[in-house]
Amino acid sequence: MSDLRERALKFHKDNEGKIALHCKVPVKNKEDLTMAYTPGVAEPCLEINKNFDTIYDYTSRGNWVAVVTNGTAVLGLGDIGAGAGLPVMEGKAVLFKAFGGVDAFPICLDTKDVDKIVETVKLMEPTFGGINLEDIKAPECFEIEKKLKEISNIPIFHDDQHGTAVVSTACLINALKLTNKKFEGIRVVVNGAGAAGIAITKLLLKMGAKDIILCDTKGAIYKGRTAGMNKYKEEIAEITNPNLLQGDLATVLKGADVFLGVSVANCVTQEMVKSMNKDAIIMAMANPNPEILPHLAVEAGAKVVCTGRSDFPNQVNNVVAFPGIFRGALDVQAKDINDEMKMAAAYAIAELVSEEELNPEYVIPQAFDLRIAPKVAAYVAKAAIDTGVARRTDVTPEMVAEHTKKLLGI
Amino acid sequence: MSDLRERALKFHKDNEGKIALHCKVPVKNKEDLTMAYTPGVAEPCLEINKNFDTIYDYTSRGNWVAVVTNGTAVLGLGDIGAGAGLPVMEGKAVLFKAFGGVDAFPICLDTKDVDKIVETVKLMEPTFGGINLEDIKAPECFEIEKKLKEISNIPIFHDDQHGTAVVSTACLINALKLTNKKFEGIRVVVNGAGAAGIAITKLLLKMGAKDIILCDTKGAIYKGRTAGMNKYKEEIAEITNPNLLQGDLATVLKGADVFLGVSVANCVTQEMVKSMNKDAIIMAMANPNPEILPHLAVEAGAKVVCTGRSDFPNQVNNVVAFPGIFRGALDVQAKDINDEMKMAAAYAIAELVSEEELNPEYVIPQAFDLRIAPKVAAYVAKAAIDTGVARRTDVTPEMVAEHTKKLLGI
Repeated sequence: MSDLRERALKFHKDNEGKIALHCKVPVKNKEDLTMAYTPGVAEPCLEINKNFDTIYDYTSRGNWVAVVTNGTAVLGLGDIGAGAGLPVMEGKAVLFKAFGGVDAFPICLDTKDVDKIVETVKLMEPTFGGINLEDIKAPECFEIEKKLKEISNIPIFHDDQHGTAVVSTACLINALKLTNKKFEGIRVVVNGAGAAGIAITKLLLKMGAKDIILCDTKGAIYKGRTAGMNKYKEEIAEITNPNLLQGDLATVLKGADVFLGVSVANCVTQEMVKSMNKDAIIMAMANPNPEILPHLAVEAGAKVVCTGRSDFPNQVNNVVAFPGIFRGALDVQAKDINDEMKMAAAYAIAELVSEEELNPEYVIPQAFDLRIAPKVAAYVAKAAIDTGVARRTDVTPEMVAEHTKKLLGI
Repeated sequence: MSDLRERALKFHKDNEGKIALHCKVPVKNKEDLTMAYTPGVAEPCLEINKNFDTIYDYTSRGNWVAVVTNGTAVLGLGDIGAGAGLPVMEGKAVLFKAFGGVDAFPICLDTKDVDKIVETVKLMEPTFGGINLEDIKAPECFEIEKKLKEISNIPIFHDDQHGTAVVSTACLINALKLTNKKFEGIRVVVNGAGAAGIAITKLLLKMGAKDIILCDTKGAIYKGRTAGMNKYKEEIAEITNPNLLQGDLATVLKGADVFLGVSVANCVTQEMVKSMNKDAIIMAMANPNPEILPHLAVEAGAKVVCTGRSDFPNQVNNVVAFPGIFRGALDVQAKDINDEMKMAAAYAIAELVSEEELNPEYVIPQAFDLRIAPKVAAYVAKAAIDTGVARRTDVTPEMVAEHTKKLLGI
């Protein structure tokens, strides 16, 4: 770890950070200046002033996404401050570009005030084609996203919630194929009622799951529970846990088909896996140490195990989702990233594992699989058009896939 | 003009705007991801959390400048809206990069509220090494700059004010050499009491000028005038026009040594130039048509004429100033861009015209003179260190010049 520390610090220092500006046009002589700046630049300004939507024609706005944080929930480090979160936001920008051809810019906001963040992001809207909220702690992240979605004309997407939900769902689509189960018939226990856990729960409901139990440190959340509730858990209690199961994780896990952890290391024992339904699916996504190690889970009877780690099979890595999701949204100038677009992304990711390839150690493509972003983008764009949130409807999924490949140089 | 219009629109559309993200680090494999993102990225985050100033070591922040506008005074187009200003802001970003090696990012804020702009920019401070205010109308631009300077720990610079003031001053330094006059002894009439006119007046006072008369559409501003005043003009009346001259432009121009116009086309006649002191200096910077055409001014006895146009000699073009000014400020992690730094920039620009080269048609170097930014940056950095606003004092002017050359590939 000390070696990693030294290397990582040197890497960041030697490169003086990770991002810079790229000019798409030359400025070598007076003619260049005449076009890129005065007097030529007045012409697109006047066009945009007349018809605002031409901003997508004459500026780079349509390909820029702000990566917005206030540094309150950075990685597993917690509330380290807006500035200290900048290396992560620059890293995220690099991933957006490398995996999705999206130009992303970090915006680190030095405040914990929900309304100030909402107002600031709204004021910046003319600059960006979309907003990726990042590493903002719950429950503020829910408030900020909800309020921004109401007032913005561009997509607002909190990756810690929805990226994780999409990738988990993609894994589950394929894992269920292996176990011959369907969303409609399974019992899912989600452990961890933070941003990711709540978003996963909601997306699985959209996917058709009927019996989901969300647990926090006090155990199952159910309608009528009084201890340790908040308005987000109240809302979840209304739409999950139809049998009003009560008790701790071990209790409610009995007979479940899927364990989905966004919680803490080693909180699941082999006994608990054994108590689950046959062909249990274990998604142990706590980082860096999962809720249960894969070999222990398999030994206890689990059919499929996914983790957040790249050194185990089936890594749940958001990088397979958010670059393609934004790529698709931007290519149709989407006003939103809605549930249908998220589900489309999950199906796109899942379909990249063919029936022949599919096996318990390969339910999700690897991060560097170059087929991912073009397919995710195409599916997301189609869903945006189909659900009426796309400004452009003259774009086909094939065009989006080709555009993505071109941007990625593949 | 129609041809320019077509070409400029096509240029912007074909390139899909002018700016994109450049990643300084590769993301081709797991090792790259480990460094640029998790888990490696946690290390610089923790360092910055411990010691905030290491943000300059581990991120790109120290080279990023926000180009902030609300679109209320874009070029000569006026209040066209924040989004319609984006082509100009992207163009400005391109100039920052091409002429100063500065990574600049446009931030178009959809509001005319001074306090909201101030608050938004302050909240974004962790992301940027400096702020360039652009195309914000007076008097809001003064308020915004003043408030931001009070609360920010990074340079705040309104280019429409100070860039213009620096370049005008550079011209004047050399023009005065040609006429064997000194700042201390001249009478200067500044026409136009907007952002640029007021900033020029203040910088010339710093340069030693004792007798400046600022005119607006009602004529000379003097202490005691009551018509058409505001608090900025009141302040100017206190520090200029020591002889309390009154009257219109033609009246106060009699016997003046310098006319400096940031006003409107053709408001100066040959008669007015003839009424000035011998070897009059005419800086007719109204765009695109100057206050008086150069050949008319020369015919009427002017010794030196400068305009804002590239097709006449002596173009007053901000691009010779702001890229080098920010380059120098960033290289020493300056907390401010103060008057001494602006004056240093003016001297740097002026000195690039040698005594042998200096003549009435060459008082200022041309925009594409590659020597400009390294020299301006070096002088500005030194002034920052000398006046105590530099975080880094281990950097020499020579190092700044070399760094600038390296960034510009020269």
